Amino acid sequence: MASSLISRQVALCLQKNVWLSSAGCRYVSKAAAKTQVDYDYDGPLMKTTVPGPRSQELTKQLGDIQNVGAVNFFCNYEDSRGNYLVDVDGNRMLDIYTQISSIPIGYNHPALLKMMTNPNNLSTFVNRPALGILPPENFPDKITESLLSVAPSGMTRVQTMACGSCSNENAFKSIFIWYKNKERGHNVPSEEDISSCMINQAPGCPDLSILSFMGGFHGRTMGCLATTHSKVIHKLDVPSFDWPVAPFPRLKYPLEEFARENAQEEARCLEEVEDLIVKWRQKGKPVAGIVIEPIQAEGGDNHASPDFFRNLRNIARKHGCAFHVDEVQTGGGGTGKFWAHEHWGMDDPADVVSFSKKLLTGGYYQKDALQADKPYRIFNTWMGDPSKNLFLVEVLNVIRRENLLEEVTRSGKALLNGLYELQAQYPGLLSRARGQGTFCAIDVRDAATRDRMLVQARDKGVLLGGCGDLSIRFRPALIFKEYHVHIFLNIFNDVLAQNK
Amino acid sequence: MASSLISRQVALCLQKNVWLSSAGCRYVSKAAAKTQVDYDYDGPLMKTTVPGPRSQELTKQLGDIQNVGAVNFFCNYEDSRGNYLVDVDGNRMLDIYTQISSIPIGYNHPALLKMMTNPNNLSTFVNRPALGILPPENFPDKITESLLSVAPSGMTRVQTMACGSCSNENAFKSIFIWYKNKERGHNVPSEEDISSCMINQAPGCPDLSILSFMGGFHGRTMGCLATTHSKVIHKLDVPSFDWPVAPFPRLKYPLEEFARENAQEEARCLEEVEDLIVKWRQKGKPVAGIVIEPIQAEGGDNHASPDFFRNLRNIARKHGCAFHVDEVQTGGGGTGKFWAHEHWGMDDPADVVSFSKKLLTGGYYQKDALQADKPYRIFNTWMGDPSKNLFLVEVLNVIRRENLLEEVTRSGKALLNGLYELQAQYPGLLSRARGQGTFCAIDVRDAATRDRMLVQARDKGVLLGGCGDLSIRFRPALIFKEYHVHIFLNIFNDVLAQNK
Repeated sequence: MASSLISRQVALCLQKNVWLSSAGCRYVSKAAAKTQVDYDYDGPLMKTTVPGPRSQELTKQLGDIQNVGAVNFFCNYEDSRGNYLVDVDGNRMLDIYTQISSIPIGYNHPALLKMMTNPNNLSTFVNRPALGILPPENFPDKITESLLSVAPSGMTRVQTMACGSCSNENAFKSIFIWYKNKERGHNVPSEEDISSCMINQAPGCPDLSILSFMGGFHGRTMGCLATTHSKVIHKLDVPSFDWPVAPFPRLKYPLEEFARENAQEEARCLEEVEDLIVKWRQKGKPVAGIVIEPIQAEGGDNHASPDFFRNLRNIARKHGCAFHVDEVQTGGGGTGKFWAHEHWGMDDPADVVSFSKKLLTGGYYQKDALQADKPYRIFNTWMGDPSKNLFLVEVLNVIRRENLLEEVTRSGKALLNGLYELQAQYPGLLSRARGQGTFCAIDVRDAATRDRMLVQARDKGVLLGGCGDLSIRFRPALIFKEYHVHIFLNIFNDVLAQNK
Repeated sequence: MASSLISRQVALCLQKNVWLSSAGCRYVSKAAAKTQVDYDYDGPLMKTTVPGPRSQELTKQLGDIQNVGAVNFFCNYEDSRGNYLVDVDGNRMLDIYTQISSIPIGYNHPALLKMMTNPNNLSTFVNRPALGILPPENFPDKITESLLSVAPSGMTRVQTMACGSCSNENAFKSIFIWYKNKERGHNVPSEEDISSCMINQAPGCPDLSILSFMGGFHGRTMGCLATTHSKVIHKLDVPSFDWPVAPFPRLKYPLEEFARENAQEEARCLEEVEDLIVKWRQKGKPVAGIVIEPIQAEGGDNHASPDFFRNLRNIARKHGCAFHVDEVQTGGGGTGKFWAHEHWGMDDPADVVSFSKKLLTGGYYQKDALQADKPYRIFNTWMGDPSKNLFLVEVLNVIRRENLLEEVTRSGKALLNGLYELQAQYPGLLSRARGQGTFCAIDVRDAATRDRMLVQARDKGVLLGGCGDLSIRFRPALIFKEYHVHIFLNIFNDVLAQNK
């Protein structure tokens, strides 16, 4: 059983009724003065290689129940704090992967612990409602305080969902419904629509398509998976739709140095997008929507310029396709803006913006026109989880109070500059350092070396993730400060020295 | 702001450190002696028609954010208790729909409140892990204590997911992967598999199918939706797969009285299943799996005999198709057994059993052979939510401690007998009373009358749901006792008198 550091802290707070005061549940660790993040540790601390003996034992145990091929190690979440993830063997690692980019303000943030111990919130956890039919009294307020307070430009409507895949699936459905009603000129289905849809046939289940990009990742349920093209392992053996796949620009980095070549590459891709839209319309499978990530994440941290996205948005408009920006991984502040698409500087950036991960709840924003015309068309039992909205309210408060987006921009600069320096120092090993905010990546000369370096970094106390074929991706929490960057760079430098 | 009855109760408990004792967080209400469910109310209490003025105001507010066409009313979950849902206008209703069958042991069960206030559990809520790569230390134990302790016969493997749709989507993927590896004779994809799957084409994305049944409901994401055939509104305008749809038996009730005719009807459907399997194989879209609900729920509470399911399971085996039993709505005890398929009396009832709703977490059990052969084939960021497993452990403890499955059987008999009596009393109005445990339904002469009766019952303090075209479905919590049945029957009798 993991030790109960947090339990003790919280019990202490509760005994003092601190939960009712505004001061919160903080305690002063030895690290406080040094680190400024007062619930953080002061550095990595490794006791074994990872996975250690206890992790191996638990992996074996879980292996009787599930496929454990992807398990890295087992965690002690009670003892994890801030930027540091502690494992069951007592190893403490600086976490720059944050549960696949889904921990917004670090582990056991005092604001979240405090929220949990407020008895007014208990019933939200214990009684999960069917939100679409029987919402709790505070639901409109909590949605307004949380998701609507960070709504993308031009959007006042949001639908919560349980996870990223469900968000994209339902966003696609909204797009199809909108497109068909537009095509009909009204929203009354024909008799043929009605009878054919019940047996999966056109015209009721129409041959519409979503255009996506090679290298993109939009989830793994079967609708989403038809727009995911990052890795074979995700798609192999699963039936799919004949939907168009456009090339995503393959840019050269640093972007400033290759502006002209990159612009040509982007123009080539945009041209291909238009060709595909025309071709699929001719095939009888019109493109109802275009889905794209502002930065292709899982597919290898591929960037494109604001111009590319502005032009793509115009192409969507020109051809009557909905423009769906998938911010599941990029949303929530990691790029230095709350939404990565804010870097494009547009008043009307999208028709649909989907999210999950750092937002703690899945869901999507949409333009008014995209909202389904009738109830139960976009529906399921839970439609999200109000307890996640409670956490999100607190997360957004912390982001504002602590100016975390500015902090991310500052840490991100330090991180990218550090990567540039290391890349210059190890030109045969590293290349293509790139990023926005702390949402950074760098390529390693080959996949085997990349994978080995990830393990070596972990054994030295830094947790990183891979993406694409050759990349290391950086996905720290928003509380990752400049001094964390330096802790990382020192350790990474040692790893590089082992592999030069 | 809703009143904070629970908050005060819990605060009281906490002050007394009751959370650390085994006695729990209970309080004695006036209703205790009368009702035996000591945290329950003693009956409905209506102050306004529903939705009342406060609900209407909130619906208007939420209407600026979402489509609110399906919202019934807004709830005060803090004040809801046991079998009673309280709304924001102070109306207290006997809840026989339980958030679309997803509240297992009533509102604010003391065991769940107590679990929430145990500080050892806080970090599970605050730090949602990426379960597939970094599970918490207690994950294997909690899965063993919860889901594995109620595993269907012959199954020792379970994968958690966030919701019912995700569960079925991933179960389908497991089936496709298993089928293709079986077809190959090994699990090494060809070069053509690899290149074609990245652009959604065969053979990498093969033309495999899942056979489902007319009237079935398996979710609303695009893979699931291709197997859902309950209502037009769910399917219209969404692209789908050309997968076979078999007829589900249309039986006559009570089943005992029409045994011979029903057996003929079931034989007809089974024959059609085999024909479809052959036909789709010839079409080049082999049936990799058959998915079915033990009782078609959303589609109208359609039953079939144990013999039907045993024969169907054999047909699946004979043709090399996986047999997937979807227990999302039927699972968790409502039929008087934990899984509805237990009524079939089989040692090897299925290859896959999916669940969600009353289980509080989504997921699916599978036979060893069905587990994906490699990591990351069945994967997503969260892979469920360990905080839901904590609740499930408590729910299962309560079910065992209070013998709730026996109680369900007893209440179910009282409910079905009551429905038989009312049906005899109102032959022009009611028909086809049917059920297993408290998982009951009855048909009303036409949809308009059915819908009106649901509203009338609600205004008298009983919350019910519709299903299919003409049915009322009963989905109480497992703590719905015989005296609750009588409260319901009295009120329902009044409603019937208004509509005869």
